[in-house]
Amino acid sequence: MPEVVFTVEQAKSMRDQRVPGHNRWHPDIPPAVMVKPGDTFRIECKEWTDGQIGNNDSANDVRDVDLDVAHMLSGPIGVEGAEPGDLLIVDILDLGPVPQEVGEHCGQGWGYSGIFAKVNGGGFLTDYFPDAYKAVWDFQGQQCTSRHVPGVRMTGITHPGLFGTAPSPDLLASWNQRERALIATDPDRVPPLALPPLANGVLPGTATGAAAEAIGRDGARTVPARENGGNHDIKNFTRGSRIFYPVHVPGALLSGGDLHFSQGDGEINFCGAIEMGGFIDMHVDLIKGGMEKYAIRNNPVFMPGNVEPRYSEFLTFIGISVDHRDNSNAYMDATLAYRNACLNAIDYLKQWGYTGEQGYLILGTAPIEGRIGGVVDIPNACCSVFLPTAIFDTDIRPNAEGPRRTDRGQVCVTS
Amino acid sequence: MPEVVFTVEQAKSMRDQRVPGHNRWHPDIPPAVMVKPGDTFRIECKEWTDGQIGNNDSANDVRDVDLDVAHMLSGPIGVEGAEPGDLLIVDILDLGPVPQEVGEHCGQGWGYSGIFAKVNGGGFLTDYFPDAYKAVWDFQGQQCTSRHVPGVRMTGITHPGLFGTAPSPDLLASWNQRERALIATDPDRVPPLALPPLANGVLPGTATGAAAEAIGRDGARTVPARENGGNHDIKNFTRGSRIFYPVHVPGALLSGGDLHFSQGDGEINFCGAIEMGGFIDMHVDLIKGGMEKYAIRNNPVFMPGNVEPRYSEFLTFIGISVDHRDNSNAYMDATLAYRNACLNAIDYLKQWGYTGEQGYLILGTAPIEGRIGGVVDIPNACCSVFLPTAIFDTDIRPNAEGPRRTDRGQVCVTS
Amino acid sequence: MPEVVFTVEQAKSMRDQRVPGHNRWHPDIPPAVMVKPGDTFRIECKEWTDGQIGNNDSANDVRDVDLDVAHMLSGPIGVEGAEPGDLLIVDILDLGPVPQEVGEHCGQGWGYSGIFAKVNGGGFLTDYFPDAYKAVWDFQGQQCTSRHVPGVRMTGITHPGLFGTAPSPDLLASWNQRERALIATDPDRVPPLALPPLANGVLPGTATGAAAEAIGRDGARTVPARENGGNHDIKNFTRGSRIFYPVHVPGALLSGGDLHFSQGDGEINFCGAIEMGGFIDMHVDLIKGGMEKYAIRNNPVFMPGNVEPRYSEFLTFIGISVDHRDNSNAYMDATLAYRNACLNAIDYLKQWGYTGEQGYLILGTAPIEGRIGGVVDIPNACCSVFLPTAIFDTDIRPNAEGPRRTDRGQVCVTS
Amino acid sequence: MPEVVFTVEQAKSMRDQRVPGHNRWHPDIPPAVMVKPGDTFRIECKEWTDGQIGNNDSANDVRDVDLDVAHMLSGPIGVEGAEPGDLLIVDILDLGPVPQEVGEHCGQGWGYSGIFAKVNGGGFLTDYFPDAYKAVWDFQGQQCTSRHVPGVRMTGITHPGLFGTAPSPDLLASWNQRERALIATDPDRVPPLALPPLANGVLPGTATGAAAEAIGRDGARTVPARENGGNHDIKNFTRGSRIFYPVHVPGALLSGGDLHFSQGDGEINFCGAIEMGGFIDMHVDLIKGGMEKYAIRNNPVFMPGNVEPRYSEFLTFIGISVDHRDNSNAYMDATLAYRNACLNAIDYLKQWGYTGEQGYLILGTAPIEGRIGGVVDIPNACCSVFLPTAIFDTDIRPNAEGPRRTDRGQVCVTS
Repeated sequence: MPEVVFTVEQAKSMRDQRVPGHNRWHPDIPPAVMVKPGDTFRIECKEWTDGQIGNNDSANDVRDVDLDVAHMLSGPIGVEGAEPGDLLIVDILDLGPVPQEVGEHCGQGWGYSGIFAKVNGGGFLTDYFPDAYKAVWDFQGQQCTSRHVPGVRMTGITHPGLFGTAPSPDLLASWNQRERALIATDPDRVPPLALPPLANGVLPGTATGAAAEAIGRDGARTVPARENGGNHDIKNFTRGSRIFYPVHVPGALLSGGDLHFSQGDGEINFCGAIEMGGFIDMHVDLIKGGMEKYAIRNNPVFMPGNVEPRYSEFLTFIGISVDHRDNSNAYMDATLAYRNACLNAIDYLKQWGYTGEQGYLILGTAPIEGRIGGVVDIPNACCSVFLPTAIFDTDIRPNAEGPRRTDRGQVCVTS
Repeated sequence: MPEVVFTVEQAKSMRDQRVPGHNRWHPDIPPAVMVKPGDTFRIECKEWTDGQIGNNDSANDVRDVDLDVAHMLSGPIGVEGAEPGDLLIVDILDLGPVPQEVGEHCGQGWGYSGIFAKVNGGGFLTDYFPDAYKAVWDFQGQQCTSRHVPGVRMTGITHPGLFGTAPSPDLLASWNQRERALIATDPDRVPPLALPPLANGVLPGTATGAAAEAIGRDGARTVPARENGGNHDIKNFTRGSRIFYPVHVPGALLSGGDLHFSQGDGEINFCGAIEMGGFIDMHVDLIKGGMEKYAIRNNPVFMPGNVEPRYSEFLTFIGISVDHRDNSNAYMDATLAYRNACLNAIDYLKQWGYTGEQGYLILGTAPIEGRIGGVVDIPNACCSVFLPTAIFDTDIRPNAEGPRRTDRGQVCVTS
Repeated sequence: MPEVVFTVEQAKSMRDQRVPGHNRWHPDIPPAVMVKPGDTFRIECKEWTDGQIGNNDSANDVRDVDLDVAHMLSGPIGVEGAEPGDLLIVDILDLGPVPQEVGEHCGQGWGYSGIFAKVNGGGFLTDYFPDAYKAVWDFQGQQCTSRHVPGVRMTGITHPGLFGTAPSPDLLASWNQRERALIATDPDRVPPLALPPLANGVLPGTATGAAAEAIGRDGARTVPARENGGNHDIKNFTRGSRIFYPVHVPGALLSGGDLHFSQGDGEINFCGAIEMGGFIDMHVDLIKGGMEKYAIRNNPVFMPGNVEPRYSEFLTFIGISVDHRDNSNAYMDATLAYRNACLNAIDYLKQWGYTGEQGYLILGTAPIEGRIGGVVDIPNACCSVFLPTAIFDTDIRPNAEGPRRTDRGQVCVTS
Repeated sequence: MPEVVFTVEQAKSMRDQRVPGHNRWHPDIPPAVMVKPGDTFRIECKEWTDGQIGNNDSANDVRDVDLDVAHMLSGPIGVEGAEPGDLLIVDILDLGPVPQEVGEHCGQGWGYSGIFAKVNGGGFLTDYFPDAYKAVWDFQGQQCTSRHVPGVRMTGITHPGLFGTAPSPDLLASWNQRERALIATDPDRVPPLALPPLANGVLPGTATGAAAEAIGRDGARTVPARENGGNHDIKNFTRGSRIFYPVHVPGALLSGGDLHFSQGDGEINFCGAIEMGGFIDMHVDLIKGGMEKYAIRNNPVFMPGNVEPRYSEFLTFIGISVDHRDNSNAYMDATLAYRNACLNAIDYLKQWGYTGEQGYLILGTAPIEGRIGGVVDIPNACCSVFLPTAIFDTDIRPNAEGPRRTDRGQVCVTS
């Protein structure tokens, strides 16, 4: 087991850890620890909301969640010798829930996935599922099950939702500029188009005084993916993966968290992954001047590992960029096409007795693949969802007799 | 070898075949042949432009292509007993280029991929590559190489780009209504937002007289994917796949073509797949009333086969929904995110000596996977391109020394 | 389609082809054709018995087969510039049954697998199945089914059972010496321990006179694998594979045949593979002096291709080197351990209604994996058979309720 | 984390644990703990020699090892309600080295593989490598490397070498009968043909007095696989696997250990796997009367998990049942064929600068596949070794230039 360079006690808030983490992106958040190229080490992580969600049968905690404090990140890890223009190589050696512990804190043998209420940001299908829901998942090795989604057992592609390097001041400014411009196009929208910096709820790591204030005032919210990495929600950042991160500040300042036990491509119900606290073991190295050498400027590049679960049979649902509710046609809109593919899959699952909410949560949590089919055949983008059939305890393939509709209860609702 | 129920002589136009095919979707195109549920049969196909592109070193034919005649489809195949509301099961038993022939016609041992000029519709990156280009690929078993893209050898996931059932009159009307409404939002756009029915170039199968005239007037263009299937350009419709098509008219009237030797997810350079004439062996069956039973209403569902090439190492490029040229931010736009992932991959390949056009054609033709990462983390959708490293004759992974830049010539250009 | 350098008319015996093949290994069989390093070409092949087995419902032809004429090989192909000590690189670009033909000759849309009678050599389980049996398989693309083994559909790992280079005179002499020595240890055994040269039935290619006589007198039988390659029966020599053959004579003199549509590891029922006539497309090249450079002296080395069918769920049966009939223990005998693993699998399949003969033929033909577990834990070798569950039309995994025993008829028997 | 029902302190001998384990198979070893069908629990294990081997650079400890005390097993675990004739379902939920610990005891961040001296039992190639050797491996997540085998990094298929249920008195007697009969055929052989019961070194669990004495006198040695499971050394018993064990005594009495971080098929250098102490999480259930229902009488059946590392490129070496030293021919001897395949692979690796001992240890530890090719083509069995190329830091495929021979040091030797 490698040395733990960032420790987390799961029973405490990230604010109360020996060295606190942070929940904004800003170049002035001081490194929590320094490591060297070639080092192997462990980071411990809180679940992304800092522990607001419980192992119970109500979705009230999802409905009432305070998102100003998210995502709670571990770090920053400073890397000696890293300079702007380098590539930071991160090998994910291992990761998982909180080791050797069973308990009430998320990651101690369990995780959850939630559908956010529309007023709280919603998810990918928020127009169809505007309320809050939740499912709790129990971990058994690399597999998990949920009492709220019976009949499903999946092998998780465990991964961090969010890792990234610190932005330079200029890069941060460019983010704030472009996101504020976007918000300005429809400032009162619910849910909003983007989230501007917000002093409320900020945790600036070990920064204090004016630095802490600046972090609250200008620090970028952690929700999206950006040029530093960030909230990729790419399920394939799993054990054995190697990621090449652009370095924008001296020391690189790598931070992350938002660990997922399993997630489908798109993380469609927003906290649709199975969220958990836990640990991640990594090895870091540098390619000096690598950004220019390899023209890796806008986003990280990565190589997936070789221990993802093998599923070989899929039921695949297709969607096109048409809104079938009013038969209106969007132009080459892959987002809409993927939304339709997901809706088609949910409609199918309902024929087997799953509720729409269960279907939605299955797509968010199971290792589904979200593929871009065609994006050039005007006017319709075409996307597809590959659903592995082996996660179900019954044969869900179409056959001449029709589906067997079984009562499977429901996920957690609000009271 | 199963019975050939639709024959094509590659040296002749689709118009001059014993039984001609068609190039519009319309319920009144008469079946070319009737088959029974449970039947196994072969269909032969022309390349999608009806043979306008040659095995040469100039892109002039791509620039000057007449697209009014595309896509040239084989069929319709009527299925006895099929009624609206059924699901038509199609098993793809085998498919490939023109068997046992080497020659000058596309599919006789070779295929091509092209980048269309912007004035001709363009491709996914037409703002970056506005001119016409071409590469010719030689087939060797399931592998292919191109004299225009040296250093690449790929195992094709051979598939039909386009198959579908005939629309009902009502469904056809709804397509025309919504696509005309879309065009009306920006009628002079280049390239256009969608393509309305067009009498010029129409081939109505064996229809004549008033029926032929109606097909030219109202028949839907074959470019996009729609509720009948259509131009999915899903590379995983390969050998061993099973597809469940909605049936909208009596007899189902299945037609198709646009065979691809290999294609990357997205078919990003429009005729970016390696196009070819060839054959497809299939088995059909019915699930009576299957659309309602399984809630498969909007689009086909399919199960991919188990003989796709296994690639286990990928270099993966990420893109987000930001236009990096002017640092403007789009809201959850997976199309833009995927475009950026592709641009990032091309920039990387350029460091190894590939031209941008070669890189673009590699992404269009190689069995890359286009994945939707996150589509809920406002404001940035996050998509990724998985590029199999084994298709390159050199190790293209990042390393400390930097890329080896080799002169690799160029694809075909226009004169 | 590459040039055909060795043609076969399936309706004729190998003896009556334009250029006849051969059925013994001998350095003096003249090349049927010469090719160059870098060439791509096609060879056509007869089924291994030269067409003695029919598409019917009786095993009499298997019982009465004349094996003196087997295996009928296509070739030799001479490779210009190849010299003893080189490695001959053979890329298998494609292979399959007789293309574009349906008919009565094996490979024209069908193949067979047989269990040989003990008096005729028997198979791996001949003490348990001493009589002759047969099953006929119909091909559909890369899949096949048999009216004699209902409930099974498999995707074939199509491959040549037998390819090899010609032995040098010294190498041939060493084979004859060691095999005669083995036979001498038990000369009257039924089945025999090995097969010595045999003039009866010999086909010496285009050799005549004294050369032909020598080939009959000294030519090695084609049954086993030896230092030249030979009858490997390795199912993974499939499309996309690259094989490095030792070269023992000038020109290498590559010959082969014994094509299999599908086969399980071990080819346990002797002609247990699904046998067929057909074609093989290959590309050849040389590594000069490669045998010494790479210490590849005793046997070929190969790299499997990447288009084998993906099966991800297996039921695995284990065997150890004990004869359970009399509870006697053999020392580290992997052959016996594998035999027990096969017997255990057959016993299991019988609980589902398959006859022992059907089970035996399933193991011989399906893409099962035969693995060596432990060969060091005295006294018991431990081997296992991985049976892909997806080839069965019912779920054959153990469950609490017990197996569903269904009448599935029987394979062909003798009359 | 599931409840630990059998605990091990790595710093102590198995004899000194709170509840000691055992090192013989005997029905009278009392259960260390009882569990129920449906239970999930953890067992902790010592490395198989009870800690005789150190993390150092000498093979003296391998040479001097006391094997009378091996294998040290954890258990027995009694399962309530299990009766002879049932099948015990064991799901391997997770397993690995000693969690959260780095230290001097095997499994605390490291493991070893050894080649045993011939006088000490030897390994599969003991005639070629008669002396003792060792390599120490460091664990990093699911990957490992060794300072003694530079240039190799492998992803382990972590698994238990040895698990089994207790034999009934009759079954135990039949083992002793047949193994003594085998030994009697050559009683003075070095290494011996089998190992009879041995009072020296016995650890009888919690048994005392006459029971302990009987266990020493009659208890079966743990070396081979037998009808109860036992030392399978099947590398695919990994995370996610399900095993169906025959039950021979009331309570089933499941015991095991001999955990391997990684191992190649055959475990050819005897303790050729990467040995370690650690833990295993499992879930148990019963199929009442399952042995008869499913005809699972002689050996366990299992289903491999779906998280094994994916390797897609292999260099495959073939061997046949000929002793190339004196050109003598054995009849259908898969053990010899596999030995030759291994020797061929080692010869090949030597051309790249690995010593024979390094090559031997690579084959024993890396996730190589040992396949049975043909076992019916008289007189030569044909086996093959699939070596994944991705475990090497250089491209080891044959090419026209020849291998690059690099000095890679040597494994640990004796002093």
